[in-house]
Amino acid sequence: MTPTLEFPLSRRAQNAAGQPISSLMQQALAHPELISLAAGFVDQASLPVELTSAAATSLVSDPVRAREALQYGTAAGHQPLREIVLQRHRNDDGLPACEDQLSVENVVLTAGSNQLLHLVADTILNEGDLVLCGAPTYFVFMGALANLGARSHGVACDDGGLIPEALEDELRRIEAAGELERVKAIYVVSYFDNPSGITLAAERRPQIVEIAKRWSKKQHIYVLDDAAYRSLRYSGEDVPSLQAYDETGETVIVAQTFSKSFSPGIRVGWGILPSALVEPVLNQKGNIDFGSPHFAQHLMAQVLSSGEFDNHVAVLRESYREKQTAMIKAAKEFFSSLDGVHYVKPQGGLYLWMQVPESIDTGIDGKLFAAALQEGVMYVPGIYCYPMEGAPRRHNLMRLSFGVQTPDGIQEGMQKLAAAVRQVL
Amino acid sequence: MTPTLEFPLSRRAQNAAGQPISSLMQQALAHPELISLAAGFVDQASLPVELTSAAATSLVSDPVRAREALQYGTAAGHQPLREIVLQRHRNDDGLPACEDQLSVENVVLTAGSNQLLHLVADTILNEGDLVLCGAPTYFVFMGALANLGARSHGVACDDGGLIPEALEDELRRIEAAGELERVKAIYVVSYFDNPSGITLAAERRPQIVEIAKRWSKKQHIYVLDDAAYRSLRYSGEDVPSLQAYDETGETVIVAQTFSKSFSPGIRVGWGILPSALVEPVLNQKGNIDFGSPHFAQHLMAQVLSSGEFDNHVAVLRESYREKQTAMIKAAKEFFSSLDGVHYVKPQGGLYLWMQVPESIDTGIDGKLFAAALQEGVMYVPGIYCYPMEGAPRRHNLMRLSFGVQTPDGIQEGMQKLAAAVRQVL
Repeated sequence: MTPTLEFPLSRRAQNAAGQPISSLMQQALAHPELISLAAGFVDQASLPVELTSAAATSLVSDPVRAREALQYGTAAGHQPLREIVLQRHRNDDGLPACEDQLSVENVVLTAGSNQLLHLVADTILNEGDLVLCGAPTYFVFMGALANLGARSHGVACDDGGLIPEALEDELRRIEAAGELERVKAIYVVSYFDNPSGITLAAERRPQIVEIAKRWSKKQHIYVLDDAAYRSLRYSGEDVPSLQAYDETGETVIVAQTFSKSFSPGIRVGWGILPSALVEPVLNQKGNIDFGSPHFAQHLMAQVLSSGEFDNHVAVLRESYREKQTAMIKAAKEFFSSLDGVHYVKPQGGLYLWMQVPESIDTGIDGKLFAAALQEGVMYVPGIYCYPMEGAPRRHNLMRLSFGVQTPDGIQEGMQKLAAAVRQVL
Repeated sequence: MTPTLEFPLSRRAQNAAGQPISSLMQQALAHPELISLAAGFVDQASLPVELTSAAATSLVSDPVRAREALQYGTAAGHQPLREIVLQRHRNDDGLPACEDQLSVENVVLTAGSNQLLHLVADTILNEGDLVLCGAPTYFVFMGALANLGARSHGVACDDGGLIPEALEDELRRIEAAGELERVKAIYVVSYFDNPSGITLAAERRPQIVEIAKRWSKKQHIYVLDDAAYRSLRYSGEDVPSLQAYDETGETVIVAQTFSKSFSPGIRVGWGILPSALVEPVLNQKGNIDFGSPHFAQHLMAQVLSSGEFDNHVAVLRESYREKQTAMIKAAKEFFSSLDGVHYVKPQGGLYLWMQVPESIDTGIDGKLFAAALQEGVMYVPGIYCYPMEGAPRRHNLMRLSFGVQTPDGIQEGMQKLAAAVRQVL
């Protein structure tokens, strides 16, 4: 064997290489002393040790149920948990129009909602296909799209989220370019968007569903409603998911997870899918992992049956609300004297999306990122959150996470970041 | 929206449709009274309720460790567990030549070994690429290959497993057809094969590694050593994995799992990969599920640290040995008077691979399958276990699992199956 022998990788593996997250993680590992406002982890202190302990104890105390949890499950997952998440979804949406369209058969459990997003993408997208999404949007999902050889196409957003008129404009442009048939989905992080923190305005929700249906001229265009952060609301009123406006139940896919509201380590997510997608997604899932870990699904079902879950989420919300308050306070304190700084206080979630003066490039090779490292703070460069096509990418934004740091850490991190901004101005 | 509107699926989703396992599962669901010798589940009674309970209690009793388990982990998984599985692998292989080539960096944890197999396939295979494998071989992996648009190419086997000379013959044929560059891997279920029950003979192991290296003329040909059943040995001596003969550490991938030896519901598997594959596989994994459930990995690390794991495996082996004995005894009792019946007593695993007379078609639409259902017993038709290309497919074999039924159920099932065979002869 010669040392020059080729180790060929699949096209997908080549597509998967060089995700921006890895260079950030390398920076974080190389500088453990940094205050990271980059990591999207959840708050360590409020992770539910006692609830997990109680649920595990209860689960293993009944040998019959314990053995069931320790055995293989089905590709769709533990039926009682599927029923619980559907019921909760209906309650949250106020028993919407889709009530009669959807049953437990539409619910698929996954190892986190990322797996659901990937499975759906893998099921509907060929290489070269298009997914319309906000500019900015969730960069891990764009990584999954790139992995599949699919294209993310940006739609302009404002303080109410994805702009329906801009969505139609992009669809018109794509149609004029002869590519409408490549559009397979519209992706929206509909509550406290990652990265923008914005919640899609209530009145835009039916509009986006209607646009997807109306533009499904030859092939179906799905709406992929990523509701991962829905339960992390700190102010304002909950709004129905986009599925509530899908009267035929054929268009909207909802992705959700207990990773943010309970534990990413237990890692149970789910999708509520149009009927036409259920079997194809399960067939894919059978090949990809032969079913998600069953024990974790039983554990979550036990947690939810205990009645303690909502109390935990209430405590969690209180903790994150405090952190969010600390970040907004620090933003006012340290950034308000700077012209060209803009942000919207999010009503929930884990992120603040901050614009700095146009003259600053927040990218990893720019002056600000280096200055911030020097000061001892790290953020996610906004450029990573922009789709490769469509609405223009902007270079002067940052995603700041308040999930991981303490309020004091947030205060300190924001002070250092402001110092870095001043330094490069 | 018109009812005729197309709901397009990706090519992959189309490939994934119609896996044989689904029609079998439908049969099983429709006839719960059947004695299933088809299901590849593990023995329900010996699932480790107490060990899991003790491990869970220990894990959650330390809040710092518990929180770590409940948080996100890395794509490669929990480092202490990666160290444990590598050490155990080295011990099992008797500190082989690969010792210096492999480190904990080569170990990737997955949600079961199926996920590892799929990840590796997704990382090295494009549509149309070839994987050489036994005829027969593990049908779920062939499903994953079909899903990817890759081709499984069968190599003749005998009672010592994959025949090295037949492997070279197939490589020669493929080269003559101008397709050698499409061959990316050789896949072997090297211990107590699913379905054949055969363990790849010790002397063939280095030969297969050598063949893979020698035929890596333009591109690298990997050997994918699926060692899922290694710990379920009931007689004979353990043999080293194929990795023990990979002196450069560049060729062999080992896939393993705790699903058979501990619990498929906890579902922790792993791969030990050549260095060149680690980063590409982790990049893919980041996109597919953003890391496997961390809590389950901590739980398994706790089980292994408790020192009780090997005792559990010893008890498990005793239980399966009894079942295997029951199946072999029943095979002798009910089938020995039939000409043309052939099987090899496996030294471990969960399966007996039985040949019936040439005149019988064991397929799902054949007379035997119907007669067996009528008698009240189900098996996996052997035809499902044959690759689509290469060595000829055979229609007169059955995979019989002794994992799930009690010894009495096995006896009864085998009696019914023999009655069905007699009926159709």
